Amino acid sequence: MDSATYKARRKVLRKTVTGGVMLFFGNNDSSRNYRDNIYPFRQDSNFIYLTGINKPGMALMIFPDGKEMLFGDPGHPDDLIWSGPSKSLEELADGAEIAQFESIDKLAELVEVTVEHKVKVHFLPSYRPGRKSKLAELLGSAEPSQDLIKAIVALREVKSDEEIAEMEQAIAVSALMYQAAFNVTKTDLTEARIRGMIEGIAMMENLPMSFPPIVTTHGEVLHNITFENTLEDGQLLLVDSGVESKGYCSDITRTIPVSSVFSIKQKDIYNTVLQAQEAAINAILPGATNKDVHFAAATAIVDGLKDVGLMTGDTQEAVSAGAHALFYPHGIGHMIGLDVHDMEDLGDAVGYAEGSSRSDQFGLAYLRLAKELKPGFTITIEPGIYFIPELIDRWKADKMHSSFINYEAVEKYKDFGGIRIEDDLLVTAEGSRVLGPPIPKTTDDIEVLMG
Amino acid sequence: MDSATYKARRKVLRKTVTGGVMLFFGNNDSSRNYRDNIYPFRQDSNFIYLTGINKPGMALMIFPDGKEMLFGDPGHPDDLIWSGPSKSLEELADGAEIAQFESIDKLAELVEVTVEHKVKVHFLPSYRPGRKSKLAELLGSAEPSQDLIKAIVALREVKSDEEIAEMEQAIAVSALMYQAAFNVTKTDLTEARIRGMIEGIAMMENLPMSFPPIVTTHGEVLHNITFENTLEDGQLLLVDSGVESKGYCSDITRTIPVSSVFSIKQKDIYNTVLQAQEAAINAILPGATNKDVHFAAATAIVDGLKDVGLMTGDTQEAVSAGAHALFYPHGIGHMIGLDVHDMEDLGDAVGYAEGSSRSDQFGLAYLRLAKELKPGFTITIEPGIYFIPELIDRWKADKMHSSFINYEAVEKYKDFGGIRIEDDLLVTAEGSRVLGPPIPKTTDDIEVLMG
Repeated sequence: MDSATYKARRKVLRKTVTGGVMLFFGNNDSSRNYRDNIYPFRQDSNFIYLTGINKPGMALMIFPDGKEMLFGDPGHPDDLIWSGPSKSLEELADGAEIAQFESIDKLAELVEVTVEHKVKVHFLPSYRPGRKSKLAELLGSAEPSQDLIKAIVALREVKSDEEIAEMEQAIAVSALMYQAAFNVTKTDLTEARIRGMIEGIAMMENLPMSFPPIVTTHGEVLHNITFENTLEDGQLLLVDSGVESKGYCSDITRTIPVSSVFSIKQKDIYNTVLQAQEAAINAILPGATNKDVHFAAATAIVDGLKDVGLMTGDTQEAVSAGAHALFYPHGIGHMIGLDVHDMEDLGDAVGYAEGSSRSDQFGLAYLRLAKELKPGFTITIEPGIYFIPELIDRWKADKMHSSFINYEAVEKYKDFGGIRIEDDLLVTAEGSRVLGPPIPKTTDDIEVLMG
Repeated sequence: MDSATYKARRKVLRKTVTGGVMLFFGNNDSSRNYRDNIYPFRQDSNFIYLTGINKPGMALMIFPDGKEMLFGDPGHPDDLIWSGPSKSLEELADGAEIAQFESIDKLAELVEVTVEHKVKVHFLPSYRPGRKSKLAELLGSAEPSQDLIKAIVALREVKSDEEIAEMEQAIAVSALMYQAAFNVTKTDLTEARIRGMIEGIAMMENLPMSFPPIVTTHGEVLHNITFENTLEDGQLLLVDSGVESKGYCSDITRTIPVSSVFSIKQKDIYNTVLQAQEAAINAILPGATNKDVHFAAATAIVDGLKDVGLMTGDTQEAVSAGAHALFYPHGIGHMIGLDVHDMEDLGDAVGYAEGSSRSDQFGLAYLRLAKELKPGFTITIEPGIYFIPELIDRWKADKMHSSFINYEAVEKYKDFGGIRIEDDLLVTAEGSRVLGPPIPKTTDDIEVLMG
């Protein structure tokens, strides 16, 4: 993005959020096991979006009269020994077309003056304890600004061509990673081995991962982030991973047969998930809600599970009751952009229209994006079917939805694991487009590739 | 370690730190760009050392009467969907031989009762903002306990055979990583490529890095953590990296000639650094101070730089004045153990004897470990020579130590970069032992390996 883009974004905010000062914090470094042993720095996405500045310890104030001020650490002369030559505050401000700049030490003073003059300070919710305490120190018990949240969501949810191109860059690297995973996966390797290989590829391209990858033979554990198991003949390896290109994320899932061929039983479930993904993709239309898209997938899953004898009864009744959630306990997907769950820091204002809120129903409660889709939205479509032994036991004992679930048949699937298939899509005027180069996902394509 | 080891360590603490309750916090998850997108979890090293429990959100209280209580999140039934089956609080407590356990929600109450009874609460310094605010909430403006810090340092600084074995496991993986780096490094690759390869190897072994690796053609920038450059003929690639095996760290540096042979100019400087490392290693003796070890390296560096005409005058005078710090601006090394800079969270009590403190002299001020060495200490020995253009310009303009530095000759080295050689050592009764399998470090061995 060029500096004018950042300036234009801030201008839109200034026109939308009136009656106050806007205060944005970039992220600080995060300490791992002592202060100076830090995790790889990740800038706050809102701060990247408004300034493009990828440096810790920054802040930005935007005043109602249009004055903008960047705050940062002016640095110490010895810094160049440790970190090399770096851009001055002035150069950083210039690069974002921000007219004024100050040492971060001056921020408290300026906020104090603002508060004294009874000018409202709009700020966003905090997801890091350090920022939370900083805001409490500066502004007492003030609450994040709903007006600012809404304005940011309205700005960030519709992606520009340049943003979409960046996401496709990320997906292109994901494609290399999955190509490698298909090529290498075989019996007796560890999960860690596959994870090291794909994450190594991202690093070789100098891209960070967009979230801790999932590489597991226990796909039924939705956020399994251990890599201790050894791959066994006949197992499925679920790989859910993504990278960031200039902050813009990819998020792709494929499920890989360890022995390079799917069993008939696996193929049936796999194809049901694939049909659910296709049904969901076909349901994407401007004006449709993402809840409709979610239900399209749920419907295909119930139909498929009825075919293999795991579910029974009227499909629509089963979906309405939430019976599918035994096998598909999560949502169809989420927005994706500068965050892999885009703007998740801003709460449900991102995924739910004003006045609507999350369902209490098990499964549906995890749907992150329910609202009406618009052209320019980028979203993931990631249905899955899982056999979670403890959940099956619990539901069976409670006779949950027993008119829709054939528990006797389900017992035979308790060691099946889980399957998920995920791609990233752009909502278009006509429907949608799967972003990035195609990554094999039919059982035939995968078996040929691995054969 | 078995559960009895953890119990025994806590028992030693209880005998050393009297007159109060001890309160230890494990680490929480660290959020990256929104709450649930977390960095890979790293437990607090003191908490690992005392409990072996590698799980976020825990705390431990040790009461003067010997009562011990573990606190943690009792969890939610739906957790198994997201994270799979996990150990209960009871099982975690059992595994560390801690008799009692409670929900973390009860911690505040128990601390409150302690404070009401005017019993002192000993706790350690915080390096994460969340813990800092938690402690402020529980204990107001109370200060970390110097008694507890001293007791922990006394315990952790001397390593057991089991701990040393674990560090040698980590170094064995480092050896694989450097083998690969020597094999693969060549012109036209990016720094990112080498970094991705070596970090991928660590991941394939399911080991985290012990710190953000340095893989740079600009070795003169001491903590350079970008990987953007392309390797050019004739350059040196400095690789400083380490992994953690069950929390125990390795920390190794090698400097690799991109064209697989060193130039004569590079060889001269390289051999000076290697001689400095040997001199430092030879100076390690129980009863010697690590400041002596540091000066042994500085002396060898000045001697070597005199040989190539970059320094002049009396070696010992130059070292005392700190003239070598233009080229060698950091300390000889640090303790290593459960932290790569072991116990750095506890401050200078780790590296400096009571009553002594860091020097103000540029360079020497960065020496992390100065005190007397004891058998069982594990330390790094990592001298280096760097040509930092901005520092050279600054010193030259100020005529700094101009009786010892031949600035005219130094000008011809301004594009040289930097060289560092680092190994991890155990202080023994007789002297020292380089830990782990040997990793090539003579110019001959490296050139043969790369040739």
